[in-house]
Amino acid sequence: MWPGLEALPWRWAGGAALALGLALEALALLVRGWRRRRAPRREVLFFPSPVTCTAALLGEPGPAPCLCPLPHGDSPLARLLRRLLSARRSLELCLFAFSSPQLGRAVQLLHRRGVRVRLVTDSDYMVLTGSQIGRLRHAGIQVRHDQESGYMHHKFAIVDKKMLITGSLNWTTQAIQNNRENVLIVEDAEYVEPFLAEFERIWEEYNPANYTFFPNKKEQK
Amino acid sequence: MWPGLEALPWRWAGGAALALGLALEALALLVRGWRRRRAPRREVLFFPSPVTCTAALLGEPGPAPCLCPLPHGDSPLARLLRRLLSARRSLELCLFAFSSPQLGRAVQLLHRRGVRVRLVTDSDYMVLTGSQIGRLRHAGIQVRHDQESGYMHHKFAIVDKKMLITGSLNWTTQAIQNNRENVLIVEDAEYVEPFLAEFERIWEEYNPANYTFFPNKKEQK
Repeated sequence: MWPGLEALPWRWAGGAALALGLALEALALLVRGWRRRRAPRREVLFFPSPVTCTAALLGEPGPAPCLCPLPHGDSPLARLLRRLLSARRSLELCLFAFSSPQLGRAVQLLHRRGVRVRLVTDSDYMVLTGSQIGRLRHAGIQVRHDQESGYMHHKFAIVDKKMLITGSLNWTTQAIQNNRENVLIVEDAEYVEPFLAEFERIWEEYNPANYTFFPNKKEQK
Repeated sequence: MWPGLEALPWRWAGGAALALGLALEALALLVRGWRRRRAPRREVLFFPSPVTCTAALLGEPGPAPCLCPLPHGDSPLARLLRRLLSARRSLELCLFAFSSPQLGRAVQLLHRRGVRVRLVTDSDYMVLTGSQIGRLRHAGIQVRHDQESGYMHHKFAIVDKKMLITGSLNWTTQAIQNNRENVLIVEDAEYVEPFLAEFERIWEEYNPANYTFFPNKKEQK
């Protein structure tokens, strides 16, 4: 049975609905693929980290490949450095203790590349021997610190306002090489946004304009 | 123009394609809704926490509502307690310092309810005044500790093998009430599974059968 001319509009309607259905499915597939490509990064690093050579990562002068006797493979510290060094625009740091020379060099490198670095730290720990804070300030990086009886005990970084790096790890060589520690790399907005808000809140609160010069000394551990 | 009878199959094909498209869209909506209902919990708690009454949460005897002078509202500590107390089967704890009486009571309550509690801690910090470790051991909870020169510096809990609670917060009253701290509540498998594996690795490694009785004393902070 061959339909008459008068049936053509229905044939077209059927074909059009089918085509529309297929187009919608194709679009859904595309969106799903795009979402998968842009899925938030979720990664965990555990420490202690074996000591590996980080010279190449930190762009240090010398022969390539580096001839130092350290192993040149991957390590949790190398991964942490790579995540930090991916910063292109901004780096917020909120760190209880910061004495690791490698992490200090990474932050200075980002500052020299024009990344806007802001650092909040703890007033007690920043004056300990080996602290990187003096060096970073000397290099021109903005640093603010607490003036409270409690510790500023956070240990997090936010890269380009979209990647949170947080965990138990203080940025010290002791913690990196000797302790059991964890670091989470997080891109989910449910975590990144509250941490960014916490950083901005603390940054404003620790504005030097608010410092008193006779703070209550810390009394408790 | 009204189509002839012979056009009906095309009309049906068009209608069927449309119905199929609509059914597919409805199914996609249902799946999306179901996924949303089962979306992993993602929450951040910031400390210091105001001191609030936790008696009701901890099932302590006394009048209800409690007549103590503390505020009875919500707080980061109350939220942390609620998440912990949601455990029905298992609780893995990997804690550098544990001296908070409220968190200690919550862990004992779970143990009494029949939840399987296992605790890993740091050998230096567990002997400090106020530590909850002795009490928890006395209550029959399994505890293992490190014997290393570095610290067991993790601060995480895993509830029913599906919810990770981790961050900078040591489980001490000082940290809860005075420090700037963070705690993430996480259900994404990309984080929960590696932490569970890390717990099992440490639990086996700290098996008392492996203890030596003349460990190297810790030398560094």
